[in-house]
Amino acid sequence: MEKQNQKNPVWIPVGISNRHVHLSEQDVETLFGKGHQLHVGRELSQPGYYAAEETVTLVGPKGVLSKVRVLGPPRPHTQVEILLSDGYTLGIQPPIQESGLVAGTPCLTIVGPQGAVTQCRGVMAAWRHIHMNSRQARVLGIQDGDFVKVQTQGDRSVTLHQVKVRVDEKFVTEVHLDVEEGNAAGLKNGDQVELFL
Amino acid sequence: MEKQNQKNPVWIPVGISNRHVHLSEQDVETLFGKGHQLHVGRELSQPGYYAAEETVTLVGPKGVLSKVRVLGPPRPHTQVEILLSDGYTLGIQPPIQESGLVAGTPCLTIVGPQGAVTQCRGVMAAWRHIHMNSRQARVLGIQDGDFVKVQTQGDRSVTLHQVKVRVDEKFVTEVHLDVEEGNAAGLKNGDQVELFL
Repeated sequence: MEKQNQKNPVWIPVGISNRHVHLSEQDVETLFGKGHQLHVGRELSQPGYYAAEETVTLVGPKGVLSKVRVLGPPRPHTQVEILLSDGYTLGIQPPIQESGLVAGTPCLTIVGPQGAVTQCRGVMAAWRHIHMNSRQARVLGIQDGDFVKVQTQGDRSVTLHQVKVRVDEKFVTEVHLDVEEGNAAGLKNGDQVELFL
Repeated sequence: MEKQNQKNPVWIPVGISNRHVHLSEQDVETLFGKGHQLHVGRELSQPGYYAAEETVTLVGPKGVLSKVRVLGPPRPHTQVEILLSDGYTLGIQPPIQESGLVAGTPCLTIVGPQGAVTQCRGVMAAWRHIHMNSRQARVLGIQDGDFVKVQTQGDRSVTLHQVKVRVDEKFVTEVHLDVEEGNAAGLKNGDQVELFL
């Protein structure tokens, strides 16, 4: 086990993300029809965010993934977050990068019931990260953009290094991992992991 | 980064396993026909082991996985090694356990071109482990059954705790992880990870 870096252990709940897409308003209209508004399916832990009822199909050079969930609300830029194993299915190698980067990436075509868009930016496996509330960040002496470690318990106990912290006063503190990271660590949504500075 | 426990770093190559089945001779005959012998497709790193040309379909209460590779040679007991995410697809919760355990597990039906068997033992997600050559184990002071840690490099650097070591004079030293563990750590087959006692 790792040595503890702070006197009182800090535990953070885990949110595990499966593959999903964020769509721009324009791409929502292209895929689902002019004037279409996403339907809120399930609210997510970060305030204002939701899993939409809508799903799309992702088409790559080698394969297809269907029923991929759209997350709302719409964003300025469309972004496709997949698992590394999805990259094999689709025939692309997604970079592991932070949400919001708009540099060029491999291309995927997103298909909806009314149209399709081919997306060559923001196709990624998400860099694991913590959404941290500003107040907690101040208490812990953590700045937006810092890297920390988290450690999990149980049969598949792991220490995840290089977890990037994003700080915002609206955030509910939570570690975001993808399904492969969650399964590799034997984690379920809502499990607690220990933070190490 | 973790503190080093030995003076000279010890690096071990990684072998990443996708879902697969090991079959008993009797089950080979049930699935593929009387007198059937598995065909060697690709030799694996451990001497004598191979990926067979044969594949099977796994059927669970909720779903199906097709083209699941058979590994040879046949073993005394049939064993099904799946990913935790496969468990969701199939509708079962595989225990994370060591290869070779014969206690009861959730059931899956294995279907081949000539027949099917329903397997309620040895259906598992494999406990991550190291195959270690006896000579190297002696040098490192490691006994069969010991637990060690390995640490990976790169964007998804992780420390995997509770890696079980199996020692045999015929083994080629190698860490065995499943696809989800490999992807969570950003690893490819043959990458090197550092061993910590």
